[in-house]
Amino acid sequence: MSRQTAETVDVEAIREEYPILEREFDGEDLVYLDNAATTQTPEPVVSAMSDYYREQNANVHRGIHHLSQEASVAYEDAHDRLAEFVGASGGREEMVFTKNTTESENLVAYAWGMRELGPGDEVVLTEMEHHASLVTWQQIAKRTGADCRYIRVDDDGRLDMDHAEELIGEDTEMVSAVHVSNTLGTINPVSELADLAHANDSYIFVDGAQAVPNQPVDVEAIDADFYAFSGHKMAGPTGIGCLYGKSHLLEEMEPYLYGGGMIRKVTFEDSTWDEVPWKFEPGTPPIAEAVGIHAAADYLDGIGLERIREHENELVTYAYDRLTEHDDVEIYGPEPGPDRGGLVSFNIDGVHAHDLASIMNDHAVAIRAGDHCTQPLHDELGVAASARASFYLYNTREEVDALLEGIDDARELFA
Amino acid sequence: MSRQTAETVDVEAIREEYPILEREFDGEDLVYLDNAATTQTPEPVVSAMSDYYREQNANVHRGIHHLSQEASVAYEDAHDRLAEFVGASGGREEMVFTKNTTESENLVAYAWGMRELGPGDEVVLTEMEHHASLVTWQQIAKRTGADCRYIRVDDDGRLDMDHAEELIGEDTEMVSAVHVSNTLGTINPVSELADLAHANDSYIFVDGAQAVPNQPVDVEAIDADFYAFSGHKMAGPTGIGCLYGKSHLLEEMEPYLYGGGMIRKVTFEDSTWDEVPWKFEPGTPPIAEAVGIHAAADYLDGIGLERIREHENELVTYAYDRLTEHDDVEIYGPEPGPDRGGLVSFNIDGVHAHDLASIMNDHAVAIRAGDHCTQPLHDELGVAASARASFYLYNTREEVDALLEGIDDARELFA
Repeated sequence: MSRQTAETVDVEAIREEYPILEREFDGEDLVYLDNAATTQTPEPVVSAMSDYYREQNANVHRGIHHLSQEASVAYEDAHDRLAEFVGASGGREEMVFTKNTTESENLVAYAWGMRELGPGDEVVLTEMEHHASLVTWQQIAKRTGADCRYIRVDDDGRLDMDHAEELIGEDTEMVSAVHVSNTLGTINPVSELADLAHANDSYIFVDGAQAVPNQPVDVEAIDADFYAFSGHKMAGPTGIGCLYGKSHLLEEMEPYLYGGGMIRKVTFEDSTWDEVPWKFEPGTPPIAEAVGIHAAADYLDGIGLERIREHENELVTYAYDRLTEHDDVEIYGPEPGPDRGGLVSFNIDGVHAHDLASIMNDHAVAIRAGDHCTQPLHDELGVAASARASFYLYNTREEVDALLEGIDDARELFA
Repeated sequence: MSRQTAETVDVEAIREEYPILEREFDGEDLVYLDNAATTQTPEPVVSAMSDYYREQNANVHRGIHHLSQEASVAYEDAHDRLAEFVGASGGREEMVFTKNTTESENLVAYAWGMRELGPGDEVVLTEMEHHASLVTWQQIAKRTGADCRYIRVDDDGRLDMDHAEELIGEDTEMVSAVHVSNTLGTINPVSELADLAHANDSYIFVDGAQAVPNQPVDVEAIDADFYAFSGHKMAGPTGIGCLYGKSHLLEEMEPYLYGGGMIRKVTFEDSTWDEVPWKFEPGTPPIAEAVGIHAAADYLDGIGLERIREHENELVTYAYDRLTEHDDVEIYGPEPGPDRGGLVSFNIDGVHAHDLASIMNDHAVAIRAGDHCTQPLHDELGVAASARASFYLYNTREEVDALLEGIDDARELFA
């Protein structure tokens, strides 16, 4: 494996931290291009969690004994670290740990939306929202009598910002937008959307699941009111999600899940709540996972998000250029450049995406085929499914070549 | 470390699987007696999760490539295994993975309670409920106009079953009872409560967080409608909880969290839902944690829950007998025997529980002091806090002696 992009990241050295990348299937080396679904987990993250279980494991929340103190410090510090990781200056008071990005969406939809939305109110989303955002706001809107409106996606896979200006108005209470589309790869102008939301006395929730792992993110520069992401897409563990929220908003919100560790005083009649973020984290939280995502943030910062972004950009540009050499390929989303992240979704004429993924799999090339949790967007695109290759810091140009060879095989098979 | 209870479990061999038990603080060996807060994690569980990240990590939900297939099988099989672990014959259709026991409570309170409860309806709880149950039903009752009633705890720390018969009546829609009290140690007659609930056309939710790790549990023998527990209290990982539910109930219930992986069809206007249990598991689920809790179930079954129960019973009986040799000790809950699990909460005259825990900690003895998430019960007991020692399969009689020595020290200091 040669260094493909030594000027960006040292892929050869990086790959040594991922034993899973050495796997073979029927004699073929694994080529893992399903990073938008979940990224692989480097040794420093795996061992941080193993070490936690072997050395520090205890429940948190003010235990008096040493282990509980150590676990509590580790758990609480992870909040500060993840806040810092996305540019939030308020530390743990602006960082809630959930179980995944989806729960972060639901938390805001319940804790904010169920109280603030009503008939006549509008939630403005984009047509490229992930189901995590789309279904959640849709269902909460249904219950509250509010309406959902969707900012159009243009033929290039970008948001129609004129339409955004039209839609975001005085009835808008919340704008919910995906930062980087997991299907189109589009990097959306979320800062502009935030300005539009705020100019109309509304708020903006940004789904950053596909952004935080792959590029520097600064929630304060964006001026996001809420910003969600998760561990397993950023070289971290499953079982943990993050919700950044402006502290005054989180303070004003009532909890939506109840239990121990989030209360101040409980009687048989009623209860009062602990401070942010604990009031949103009832029960035993994802402690080992917090240690893991902290290690993942350190790991990614150690390499540098700018360099990861540049590396992915090189790979996606190469893939895009090679794919577009063929007339039978339809690629969704913008051209490579500042508006596209490190993934590419496409279809090949005459080959169903699932068949393509299956042929790829015969060569141990792991891509995803399906609707990528964006069914309504796929309806707009006029297809039921697409194939998606998504890159991360450990992928190489040779792996893109393996993808292209797999496509050639599929063409021959279905010719 | 000698074999204390060779006829029950081989503690010496067991302890070798827990490197954390070798920790020392200021030259004193750790004595970990905070197992009701969280249990330690044996090597087979830690390595199952590390191996998952190093060999199989992928997102689930019908991915076509090898890794996703392996991860999906592992994730889905874990549901069957945990169902089997608590005697549920329906497999994955009766087993939902959540983030912790508390979320399992909230899931039912939202998905069932918000639709089924209304003014005039009653939820019957016990005075010894954990906040996970108490606060959740209290708040959902407040929102729906229902009332909460509480079955009295008698002077021995047992449920007043006459009072239960009085309370559970035609207005009762749900009975929510803790199987084993995390404060009193009481093992409640949940099967009798289930009969009472069913005789009154109502349902029963059992909080089994303190039961499943420590004794054989059979949800079908209990005839529980819902039964909740979590990984981190049963030698498993943080970040995962379990909810058993009778399949027809889970099928009838609408989801309460929305997102990807739980839908069948999504349009901009509305959505339909996937099958049980997936409709309750939106977003990327706790995959590594599912692998971990599966390994924990195998680990505990390999030793035998009957033997673990017997071992804990020996330790708690020894601790109880020694503690009651002194007049200045108040122990809460029933005498050791069939009605008490492996924990003991107490206070020493003239020594605040927090001071006691702090003195213990000077000797590296880890106990918990506080209200143990049962504030209203502590109000009934007339104390703000209690000290709690809780045992697990790796604890020894010498460790109970260390607890007793710590108490002697505290007596001297506060004499």
